[in-house]
Amino acid sequence: MPDISSKAKQIPASAIRKLTPYADAAKAAGVKVYHLNIGSPDIKSPVSAIDAVHNFEFDYLPYSNSAGDVNFRRALVQKYYSKLGIDVNEEEILVSVAGSEGVDLVLQVVCDPGDDVIVIEPYYTNYYSFAFRNGINLLGVHSDIREGFSVPPIEEFEKLVTPKTKAVILCNPGNPTGTLYTAQEIRRIGEFCRKHDLFIISDEAYREFCYSDEPYCSVMTLPGMEQHTILIDSVSKRYNLCGARIGCIVSHNASVLEAITKYAQARLCPPVLGQVAAMGALDATAEYFAAVRGEYMARRDFVIDALNKIDGVYSPMPMGAFYTLAELPVDDADDFARWMLSDFRLDNETVMVTPAASFYCDHGKCRNQVRIAYVLEVSELKKAMRILEEGLKAYRAIKG
Amino acid sequence: MPDISSKAKQIPASAIRKLTPYADAAKAAGVKVYHLNIGSPDIKSPVSAIDAVHNFEFDYLPYSNSAGDVNFRRALVQKYYSKLGIDVNEEEILVSVAGSEGVDLVLQVVCDPGDDVIVIEPYYTNYYSFAFRNGINLLGVHSDIREGFSVPPIEEFEKLVTPKTKAVILCNPGNPTGTLYTAQEIRRIGEFCRKHDLFIISDEAYREFCYSDEPYCSVMTLPGMEQHTILIDSVSKRYNLCGARIGCIVSHNASVLEAITKYAQARLCPPVLGQVAAMGALDATAEYFAAVRGEYMARRDFVIDALNKIDGVYSPMPMGAFYTLAELPVDDADDFARWMLSDFRLDNETVMVTPAASFYCDHGKCRNQVRIAYVLEVSELKKAMRILEEGLKAYRAIKG
Repeated sequence: MPDISSKAKQIPASAIRKLTPYADAAKAAGVKVYHLNIGSPDIKSPVSAIDAVHNFEFDYLPYSNSAGDVNFRRALVQKYYSKLGIDVNEEEILVSVAGSEGVDLVLQVVCDPGDDVIVIEPYYTNYYSFAFRNGINLLGVHSDIREGFSVPPIEEFEKLVTPKTKAVILCNPGNPTGTLYTAQEIRRIGEFCRKHDLFIISDEAYREFCYSDEPYCSVMTLPGMEQHTILIDSVSKRYNLCGARIGCIVSHNASVLEAITKYAQARLCPPVLGQVAAMGALDATAEYFAAVRGEYMARRDFVIDALNKIDGVYSPMPMGAFYTLAELPVDDADDFARWMLSDFRLDNETVMVTPAASFYCDHGKCRNQVRIAYVLEVSELKKAMRILEEGLKAYRAIKG
Repeated sequence: MPDISSKAKQIPASAIRKLTPYADAAKAAGVKVYHLNIGSPDIKSPVSAIDAVHNFEFDYLPYSNSAGDVNFRRALVQKYYSKLGIDVNEEEILVSVAGSEGVDLVLQVVCDPGDDVIVIEPYYTNYYSFAFRNGINLLGVHSDIREGFSVPPIEEFEKLVTPKTKAVILCNPGNPTGTLYTAQEIRRIGEFCRKHDLFIISDEAYREFCYSDEPYCSVMTLPGMEQHTILIDSVSKRYNLCGARIGCIVSHNASVLEAITKYAQARLCPPVLGQVAAMGALDATAEYFAAVRGEYMARRDFVIDALNKIDGVYSPMPMGAFYTLAELPVDDADDFARWMLSDFRLDNETVMVTPAASFYCDHGKCRNQVRIAYVLEVSELKKAMRILEEGLKAYRAIKG
């Protein structure tokens, strides 16, 4: 019997999805599970996106351009990026199979196997998955929950720089923290990248989910950094079309785009029906985004308040995305999360959260933290928070 | 200015798409280009697939399971594989972003960087692209146009075996050759793989496009090979839904599926709208496939006859897919293909073909061959063949 590769044996299981079998078992036993563990929103897509799919006439479905349909890329420029003050043209955009493929393609084009990328931790766990598959090392700079996960001092970045360092990757606003970086913080990271001639890779999938009056600072607007910046964007996240699997890579650096295009040609094209939905979504109005933001702010305000009222729980106030990282009064959040699914019920209901240890390079770190996605309506979140509170009480009574 | 990786600088440009700028220039100048260069069919999708998309009600579009929607996987078993005599269950299927991602995921799970995979050449050029990105070597066993590209003697495979050899990958029916392997040929390769404990990876994207009365032999039906066989399938190709980007990986080997699932979790899920279309397509009738086959056989019969009537041209009779490899009376088909696009016009029309050299491990080989995809209606193919004939005459007059 032939054996799989050594590398394949070391692939980490998804930190976010590995507890799923416990949730499935609970549900099979008739227990209702509140999913605070995964960022799959329940907010409506723009009607224009849904209509675009229903009105799309086709007799057969050919490939699109490998870089994505050119009309879609033009529409991204005209209907979206130009309004943000991001000055790009359609040749500087490659449509990817969501942000996920964006990360995978960008990492392999900026790094050779064995190279290093600096990341602020806690970080989106799949950065590690894609670094792993490409043989790239992710080096973490620690950001602290008590500092609201703000950008650490640049000296901490400096300590990690070697000739193998090729890039900094950041997520703004952040998954899993919900932290929104200030323009000053982005500029500081930009300066550091320019000084060491590193790429700055910015995952801005949650750009439309900011809860501050400060203007959003995209790396694409950093002056004099045109050749350093690579933007990873998600169209599917932005319009609640996660399943559409459409994102894009944007850069002024022609060498980067050219190399990525060659890889992209091997996989032929991004999903065409997803591009149709995304093209329709670009007609979403400012009112659509405002309503979505309003809904998330109400959820956030409720959840953060409820969390901090639970004995021993601490969460900073996230200013973006739809996540927060919270400290729980437990030693091992992984054990607690699993126990909630397998053992704890309140009126035959329980909650699922994501242990945060895998969001750190050293998985032994911050084992008392969990990520909570506030992707349910406030009425549901109310029940979930009560279950979490009662679960924590019961767990501490048992496990001391 | 930061530099891209050394590896990224070596990425080969797509052999199939690299002449596109010349075609674009011709079209911009008002010239009609007959595309015989790419396997993007013009045949209608099943109405059930189109209806499924138009009738799909959604308010928002969440992720599916990373392995693909379980109802879709069950439908694949019940409505498709069981009818072929392929005995699998939904847990043995992972829905991939078309056959392309299937190749990428399978290669990286069966091989470590530096390992070898044996392929019968000429081979589908993107196998090389995915091997390259995963640091895997593709070793070619030469099959000959004058032998109709039949499977070479097993001694030729034996010569390549070392401890680094992990798998044989084959495409049946073949892209770019159109060759349909006999059950005996498949069993011979299976025996070889069992003897050396290698995986047998079979890309059967063109399974429904066979023009022989012999029953099709899938590797999944090889007895005693359950742990060795990995099937790469394409739903989008089968139903003329290339842009849907849906395929699947099928294997009885639990370790293979488990490792692939971990990689698949990092990219979250395959396109959901594509899965909706593919689910609908599974209701295609036997009459649908029969009509498609009839159409392709008429095109094939016309094209092969026309090709062999051109002075100095030779093409074997392909028994599957919608391609043929033909020998032309030129020294350098790459130069000829480019010249047709840039210099030759007949009534302001020209044809685009794909030079075949890049389908061989040694790109210096068989430089007089081109791949022709017969994906146009016979009336169009008639004009294209006449242009090819006149183009060859003119080219030989100029270039000797």
